[in-house]
Order: sequence, then C-alpha cells, then structure tokens
Amino acid sequence: MMFEEYDNWGHGNWGRWGADDERGTLNLLTPETVVAAARCVREGRVVSLAMPIRGATSSAAPTTVPHLRGRPLPQHFMSVDGGDYAAGARAVGAGLKMADDALVVTPHGTTTHMDALCHMWSGDELYNGHPAGRVRSYGAQRCGIDKAGPVVARGVLFDVARLRGVPHLAAHDRIGPDDLQGCLDATGVDLRPGDVAVIRTGWPLTWEEQGPDAYWSGQPGLDADGGRWLAGRDVSVVAADNAAIGGLNDRQLADEGPDDDLHLILLWRHGVHLAEMLWLEELAAARPADFLFVAAPLRIEGGTASPITPIAVL
Amino acid sequence: MMFEEYDNWGHGNWGRWGADDERGTLNLLTPETVVAAARCVREGRVVSLAMPIRGATSSAAPTTVPHLRGRPLPQHFMSVDGGDYAAGARAVGAGLKMADDALVVTPHGTTTHMDALCHMWSGDELYNGHPAGRVRSYGAQRCGIDKAGPVVARGVLFDVARLRGVPHLAAHDRIGPDDLQGCLDATGVDLRPGDVAVIRTGWPLTWEEQGPDAYWSGQPGLDADGGRWLAGRDVSVVAADNAAIGGLNDRQLADEGPDDDLHLILLWRHGVHLAEMLWLEELAAARPADFLFVAAPLRIEGGTASPITPIAVL
Amino acid sequence: MMFEEYDNWGHGNWGRWGADDERGTLNLLTPETVVAAARCVREGRVVSLAMPIRGATSSAAPTTVPHLRGRPLPQHFMSVDGGDYAAGARAVGAGLKMADDALVVTPHGTTTHMDALCHMWSGDELYNGHPAGRVRSYGAQRCGIDKAGPVVARGVLFDVARLRGVPHLAAHDRIGPDDLQGCLDATGVDLRPGDVAVIRTGWPLTWEEQGPDAYWSGQPGLDADGGRWLAGRDVSVVAADNAAIGGLNDRQLADEGPDDDLHLILLWRHGVHLAEMLWLEELAAARPADFLFVAAPLRIEGGTASPITPIAVL
Amino acid sequence: MMFEEYDNWGHGNWGRWGADDERGTLNLLTPETVVAAARCVREGRVVSLAMPIRGATSSAAPTTVPHLRGRPLPQHFMSVDGGDYAAGARAVGAGLKMADDALVVTPHGTTTHMDALCHMWSGDELYNGHPAGRVRSYGAQRCGIDKAGPVVARGVLFDVARLRGVPHLAAHDRIGPDDLQGCLDATGVDLRPGDVAVIRTGWPLTWEEQGPDAYWSGQPGLDADGGRWLAGRDVSVVAADNAAIGGLNDRQLADEGPDDDLHLILLWRHGVHLAEMLWLEELAAARPADFLFVAAPLRIEGGTASPITPIAVL
Repeated sequence: MMFEEYDNWGHGNWGRWGADDERGTLNLLTPETVVAAARCVREGRVVSLAMPIRGATSSAAPTTVPHLRGRPLPQHFMSVDGGDYAAGARAVGAGLKMADDALVVTPHGTTTHMDALCHMWSGDELYNGHPAGRVRSYGAQRCGIDKAGPVVARGVLFDVARLRGVPHLAAHDRIGPDDLQGCLDATGVDLRPGDVAVIRTGWPLTWEEQGPDAYWSGQPGLDADGGRWLAGRDVSVVAADNAAIGGLNDRQLADEGPDDDLHLILLWRHGVHLAEMLWLEELAAARPADFLFVAAPLRIEGGTASPITPIAVL
Repeated sequence: MMFEEYDNWGHGNWGRWGADDERGTLNLLTPETVVAAARCVREGRVVSLAMPIRGATSSAAPTTVPHLRGRPLPQHFMSVDGGDYAAGARAVGAGLKMADDALVVTPHGTTTHMDALCHMWSGDELYNGHPAGRVRSYGAQRCGIDKAGPVVARGVLFDVARLRGVPHLAAHDRIGPDDLQGCLDATGVDLRPGDVAVIRTGWPLTWEEQGPDAYWSGQPGLDADGGRWLAGRDVSVVAADNAAIGGLNDRQLADEGPDDDLHLILLWRHGVHLAEMLWLEELAAARPADFLFVAAPLRIEGGTASPITPIAVL
Repeated sequence: MMFEEYDNWGHGNWGRWGADDERGTLNLLTPETVVAAARCVREGRVVSLAMPIRGATSSAAPTTVPHLRGRPLPQHFMSVDGGDYAAGARAVGAGLKMADDALVVTPHGTTTHMDALCHMWSGDELYNGHPAGRVRSYGAQRCGIDKAGPVVARGVLFDVARLRGVPHLAAHDRIGPDDLQGCLDATGVDLRPGDVAVIRTGWPLTWEEQGPDAYWSGQPGLDADGGRWLAGRDVSVVAADNAAIGGLNDRQLADEGPDDDLHLILLWRHGVHLAEMLWLEELAAARPADFLFVAAPLRIEGGTASPITPIAVL
Repeated sequence: MMFEEYDNWGHGNWGRWGADDERGTLNLLTPETVVAAARCVREGRVVSLAMPIRGATSSAAPTTVPHLRGRPLPQHFMSVDGGDYAAGARAVGAGLKMADDALVVTPHGTTTHMDALCHMWSGDELYNGHPAGRVRSYGAQRCGIDKAGPVVARGVLFDVARLRGVPHLAAHDRIGPDDLQGCLDATGVDLRPGDVAVIRTGWPLTWEEQGPDAYWSGQPGLDADGGRWLAGRDVSVVAADNAAIGGLNDRQLADEGPDDDLHLILLWRHGVHLAEMLWLEELAAARPADFLFVAAPLRIEGGTASPITPIAVL
C-alpha cells in the first residue's frame, strides 16, 4: 500500500524555481547583479571549488576525504563496467560497450554542498514563517533545495588565513567582523548586496597534513558577530571551506546558543544560503579581486541540501 | 576483508581537474572562449535547464517525471525532518532543529545529466586509447566524470522543433546537418569552436501532454551526419532534451550500427561530452541568440556521469 | 551537525528480542508449541517460500519479478567482482580474489517480507497502545521488526485455490471463514493456537502466465470476517502469497473501511504478524498436512518490515 | 541505454534452489539429516544468533555496533513514519496510517551474514570449477547466495573461550584441531556429517567492554589445520562470532598465504558455507549439547552474501 502526499510537486515550467518567499537572499540576485557578476570574468580561468565525492563499498576509500566523523559516507557503484566485458559480457548490438553507475550520497558533512533553507530552524517555523511541519519524510514541501535555483553572482574571497599570516586557522579560532573587514581592506575589494562571501579558513589542509584526528579536533569558523556582519551586508550566499560556517568543538557541535548559532542567524533568520566544505586552495593562490561565482544545486525535490561543484571564473 | 585498488585517487589540488588526454573537447575551452562566453550575458537572466530529481520510497512520485522505461529511479530519504519534532523529538542543544537527507541516484536515463568520456566505447579502448579495462567496479580510473571539470562556454540553441514548425518532433524524426544549419540560418547566430550545441526536440512535452507510453514510444534525435557535422565544428558539448542525443526506437535502443551510433561518433571518437535530458522549454521561449552555458558536474571519482543543473545565462 | 535521538538502542543481549508488549501474537509461541512444531518434521524436506530479490541498475531485471506497481524496486550492486580481475585487478596478498556486494531494498510490495507491528495503525496509537509518535525518521522505537524475533511454529496451509478447484483465485475473489474452515475440513488438519496460517491464492501465477498488467489488475485476499476468524483462533502469523493479506483493487488499494481493513484487524488490533508475497507453489504441490514453519526476520532496528526467506520443513 | 545480460535469471519454481554443483556442502543436508536435526529440539527454546542491523543517516548510530573498520555501514531510512502524521499528513482512506522503510546494506564485515560460494577464490575458477568470469557487475551467475538455499541442520557449539577458561580469546589466538576436539570431549557431543559447527571466540565482547579500537586490534579465529579438520569432518556450515572465520591482524587482513587461508580452504576448496559475525553469548550461556540450527539467506540473485538471523532451537 502506498502513501499519497506527493501530489503537489509541480509539473513543467522547470526552467524557473521556487516562489520568492522560499528563496531568501537569492532574491538579491537581479538581472543587474548577474550582468555585473559576468563582468568580473577577466582572465577566463575557471577554478573548481569542490572536494571529490569518493565512494566505494569494497574499500575504505571514502574515509580518505575530509568529512565529519560518523556521517554516512558516499557510496558509488558501477552497474556495468569494463571488467564485465573483459570477463566476456556481450556488447550491445554490433559492438557498443558501456559503463553505468549509481551514487548514494548524504551531502551534509560528507562533501561540498549547499544547504536548503529548510535545513535548520528553531521553534515551529522555518525561515520566513513557513511551517516546519511541512518538512516530512517525503521531503520539504517548503524551502527545499529545489526552490533555491542556481547562484550566479559576484564572488569575494575572504582569505582569513592569509590575513592572519597562517597556513590555516586553529580549531578554536573564530572569525569576527574585524577579520572580514580586514580582508576587504587588505585587497581593496568592496562587498556589494548579492555577493557571495567565500570564507577561507584553510582547515581542510589539516586533513591532508595531519590526518582525520586533527580535522576532527574541532573547526575554526565565523563567530556570531561575523555572521551578523555578513547578513547586514546583504550577501546572497556564505560559502566556506569548513563544515558548518561557524566553528565546531571536538564533538563536532557548535558551542553557541540559539541567539548566536550561525545557521540560525544566517539560514533561518536572514534566509542566507550556505555552501560548506568548499576546497579553496587553488582559488586562494590566485588571489583574485572579485570573480564570477556559480553554483547550481541539483533540483532534488524537497531536498535539504545538494552536493555541488561551485566554480569561480576569474 | 577489503579490496585495495583505490590507492591511486589523487590528494589535494582539487581546484584543477584531469589531464588533457582525458578531457576530450573540454580542452577547447580556453581563457579566450571563457571570456567570450561571459560576454554573452546581456540581460542577466538565469534559466535552469534541469528536470527535477523526484524521489520517494512510499509513493510512485519518481515515476511521474520523464525517464527511460525500466531504469532505477531516484530515491530520496529524509533522515530527520519536521515530523520528528512534531512527534516529540528533542531539539539539539538549546533549540536547534534540523532536516537532513540522502539521495540514491542513477543518472543515465532518469534525470538531467552529463556523460563522462568513459560511458561508452567499442572494442577494448575508451576515447583516446585509454584502456577500457581500467573501468572497473571501483569506478573509472580513466575518463571518469571527475576528470571532466566544469563547462563554462558559449551556448547556441538549435531549436529544431521551432525550425520545423511543430511543438515537438515525432519519435521517428531524425536531425541532420540541414536542420542544424537551418537553425543557424534562421537565427543568424554563428557556431564557434568550444561552443555548447543545445539541441531542442521538444520530446519531454510528450510526457506532460500524453503520458509515459507516448514518451516511451521512441525518441527523436540526431542522425549520424548531424553528429559528424557537430563534431566537425569542434563543439565542446552536445546537450539535448532527449535521452540519448541520437534517436531511440520503442525498445529504447538506438538503431544505428557502430559506425553511425551517436555516442560512438561523439563521445568515443571525438571526445565530445554529452548532456542529456535537459529541460529546454523556458530557454526556447526566450529565443536567445547565444548565451553563457554553465554545467558543473559533481566530482564523483570514477563516475560514468553526473546529475547536473545546467544553466543558461542570457 | 548530527541528530542525537539514537541513544536508546540497546547493547548486547541480542540473543533475545523485544519485551512481550511489543511482540503481539509471537507471545503465543511457547516452548511447548516450538517442540510440537519441530515434531511436524516427518520427511525432512525443506521448501523455500521466498520469491527472489532481483536487483539491477543497468537493466530492467527487477521489473520481471512480481511486485506492486510504482514501488521502489530492489537494487543490487557488486563492489568488486570477477570482471575486475579479468580486467587486471590485483589479487589480495598472494592470490586471494573476492566478490563483494550491496543491496538496497524496500521490502513492502517488492519481495517476500514480514511486517513489523509498527507498520500500520489508526489514530495515535500503534498496537497495544504504544504511541505512534515514537515511530520517527530514525526508526520505530516501538514495535519495530527487531522486537519480533524469529518465528518457529507449526504451519498449516490453507490452499484456497485448490479448495475452489481453480489454478488461482480471481482478482475480486475474497476469502471468508467458510473457505478457511473448508480447507481444514478438506485436509483433516486442525488449527491450534500459535500456528502460522499460510494462505494460498495462487495470484503470483498471473505474473508468470499473463504478465504485470494482470497482476496489477487487483488481488484476491482475505475478507474481514476471514481475518477475524483467524485472529479468533489465535494464530501467531498470517502468511499469504498475495501482497496485502486482504484483497486489492486495481489501484492497488484496499476497499475496506477501518473496521474491516485486514491490516487493522490483524496487525493493529490483535498484534498478529503478517508475512506477504510468499511463493507457495512447491509447498502446495506437496499437499502437506502440517509442517514446521520458520521465518527469521533480519534484526533491523526500528524497521517496519524485513525481507525474509520463510521455510517449510515437511 | 541498457545492458542486457540479465536474461538468464530463472522464472518460477522458486521453492527449490540452485543445482547441486553450486551448493557445495549444503548437499550434505539430506532428508535424514533434516529429520535428525529437528529431533535436537528438546526444550523448545529459540535463541537468535544475530547482531542488530543498526542504520541511521543523521547520527553515528551504525558505528556503535561491531563491524570491520572502514566498511560501508548499514543505512536505514523511513519513507513515511509517525512523525509525518504528527505533523499533519493525511491518513490513507478513512484512517489508515502506515510506516514504510528502506535498507541499504553491505553484509560483509558489517553484520551477521552468510557468504555465498562465489565470495572468494584464487586463480580463474570459483568453487567446483565454475568460471570466475561469470561473477560480474550484474551479480554472480554462478554460486550466488540464491543458489545456497536454507540451512536446516544439527548445530554443535565449539565454545573455545570456555574451553580455555577465558571470557574471550585474544586477538592473536588461533584455534586448531586440538581446541575443536577438546570442545567435543568436554561436552561429550559428537560431530556428524552435515552438522553446522558454531565457533565461539567471544571476540564481540571486546566491542562492548573495550570499544572499537580493541575490536579492531586484530581478531582470533581458526587456523588452517582447524579449518581442514572441520572440512574433513564434512560439516555443512562453519559459523563463527568473528568476522572472517580465520584470524585477522590489526589491518584486518588474514596473515595466511593461499594454501592456508581459511576462506580458500573452506569456501573455495571444499564448498563449505560460512556464516560470520554471529552473536553467541546467550547460546553459550545455555551450554547446549546439540540443537536445531536454521539460517535462511535472502534469495538475493547473484548475491555474494546475505544478512541473516540464524537461530538455534534448543
């Protein structure tokens, strides 16, 4: 027998996305900001900001990529591959061979992803007063990632590690308004409404250099005032190379109370979309002024997030 | 006990992608073409070209989106949601509530996706002579989707249905060089090396208007000469709203032999990346000259494809 | 960030199962009934009562086994296999080769399975007054399949198709007390408290002989009085070869109201465990008097069902 | 496009299992041994020998059950649950509510399971000369778990920890013929052809008492001569509470070469089915003479293993 609450996913007109009241700060992206963002392309260089999705089921491969401890790691399966033909499988028709695959992925905490506005809240209402009770087992009827739509915006890099003169911040370091303003001052770049603030802590380097236990010892991140500073400047997205925008303790939890929790400040109160677990090392090495930032989440109906490959076009 | 062939996935430097010999026509994307593509942004309008990923496990929801018959449809799960709190689940800490989810997806034939160069071949070698035997259960060590990297290019729409004056092509219609040249002539747009050729057949409308059986009765698509025409013009990507670039019969298979198979012509012989099952209706209604096309596949190591949300920026 | 409601799954002592108040009619299985059931073994012949779990992701194989329309079918993946070695994968150590796999399965409606007592209810309480709100995204804290434990009982076959002299019942046929009593009278077997009533409609034959559309045209099954008759005789399990114990219409839904719904009568009101989608053809051909019935659900914590391979030992 | 190698899975007649040449030592189970096994039921007490399948995607719950390090842990999803109704989901029809779920499971190394004869081999042939190249991405065409069929046999417990007077063996302890004969001598039980040898090391207790790192420090198990001793006595199944029948080092690999590898001795050379990761504490406490052992693997076509709930009926 079957459950019948899925009748309200829309049909057609998929070139558009959700209503304005479910899109939060993505409404700041106007034709003018999009045109201005495209004009940030100067060199024609494209930099990927994604970590790999490393799946396996017959080895520990997925555990070798930065992730939060205890999360269900990606699984990647080949449903037909070159080995099958080597073992004698028949080609299709007169000689066609193929490889086909499948992916099982829980984006939060395991790979580069963008949060939907339904991902976190307090009390009984999501962002903008949408009822939290509409987020059910069949997906988020309100504020799902399918409502967000693509991000095409001007990106501004806040390389806090560089500002502080360290390879990466320490686990207990927190990033406040002074750091953020300092980054702007150091580069002479302004921050405009609709921009994507890309925050670099350098924390993923600890995984490469010191291993999982170092990565799991906590995480640097924005403090509450830093979050408010960004929300007050009408950024469309906050994107960071840490796992939770804010800092984490060694139990991989935030220490802030509800008033100061970064997800509640940004995602819930202000509708600011968050992108987490970016890989920013090549971008940082380029020391860009501003750039075209593009992230196009998968249109997962009712999804709480999407894995993404964000890009910077310099 | 565990299998140990995964030791050769790379570490770090993830801002770049694969070596040139695994990237096919994406090597046509140069700083110059990227800058030129960005200059195609005039209105600042962003159009999504993705169909939804509609998952469910307690209803038939996934069957209501266009897909090839018999394919494993997406499954979407909520691992915590608003219903849990309505039923009394404790908030985290002092009041934080969250929704978290997981996705199981087989992109080929079920949703908008981009093929990796390892997806199809003939004989014992993939595109560019890479050994097909390196495509094994742990993923494609050669020519996987992780090697492709993002597509940032000028897009040109070939609205063949409009050219022929029909809402959508018929299942047996095939698109040849005359159609393609006719589209260019009708719009006065030129096609340049590195461009993304976006082919509209209108076929997904049959699903909306006539239902699954109509959609499964076959599919219109490029014929072999049409494929050769595009390869000869050095496009970087061929993207279409049908399921297999070429046409399909009512068993959902191509009728062409190996010489004329569209995947073999484009993907295998010329290294042209393919994007399939796009939703092009809103884009077509805008009747764009050229536009900025962006598609950033997930960095699935060894993947044969990635679900994508391609975008057109007009 | 992570959700923390899982702290109450037990540790150790896994040789036992749930408390009596979550086990319903399985409490009828006493040392005496178990010993008596074992004594039903006369020939030493073991018959499997399971349909295959046919998974695939690169073909339509799963669609070729009886299942309810629109359900998410099993997916089976090999994470390493013989093809990998044929293509050159290294053996482990000094020569060990291996095959490893994974399964994605939603048991209800797709394969032979046993329902947990949490599977269906009306109002706000599960069987025996357990709060329905404890059945959340992390699984059923009450009345999950992990609480059921194995079934080791005397089995009695009600071959209704044979009684009526037909290869299989028709979609609209319903089985009442007269049919059930008739089966007992025809075979001279008595029904005792704790027995497993195995009901044969023959419906899976329609799939083999006429195809999916015939199978999906509806299903024969118990009527409400038939369900009450069984509950009144204190059976421990009702096991049938149809998909829902009761009958289904062509939308694959039950027509009965809440008073007469078979799941509500048996599972919810009386705590009678249900096993569905059994394959009974070989068993029926043997025309057993009584037999040892064993079904041992997987110990899926919080599960709403388990796929099973029930067996009859004659 | 689809891969078409699945046409040879059988239809109907599912009450039987594979041909004799793919069933190995399960051919030792004859009507006589089955009848004799049933006669081992004396008390009527049923003991489960399974560890729980603990899944989650929003917490670390699965990591709290014994498993090999780095394996893909079970994931369990609810596709509709009581929380949905608490949040306002409509009941089906006139009041029916339901919970439905899905499971993703890789049995090897993560939970109680039975290996198929295709699971391990050396060279190019599986057990009994079946070609290893028939074990491909679509599953094992030869010697899959679907060919095994249910195990209904007399069980004999070898409680090696008790024999040695320790709560559990140490990681480096290996079990030889003397231990096995010693267990028989201590209990006065004989071992007969077709019996299931159930080997208790007590190793899972280290997980409960000392945590994962202790469990992962290595594992006690049979040595090669112990394996040969069992094979020479024509047991039908070797079932143990460790993860690999043989011992493991701290990299969770076997130290033996191909001649002495326990999987190669038992599974490959002799066709002895293996069941691993059993929970034997309650059974051991009962100090049974012999008992009825039942394990009925899921009929996963082409599967390399099945999760099982083995039972002992005393």
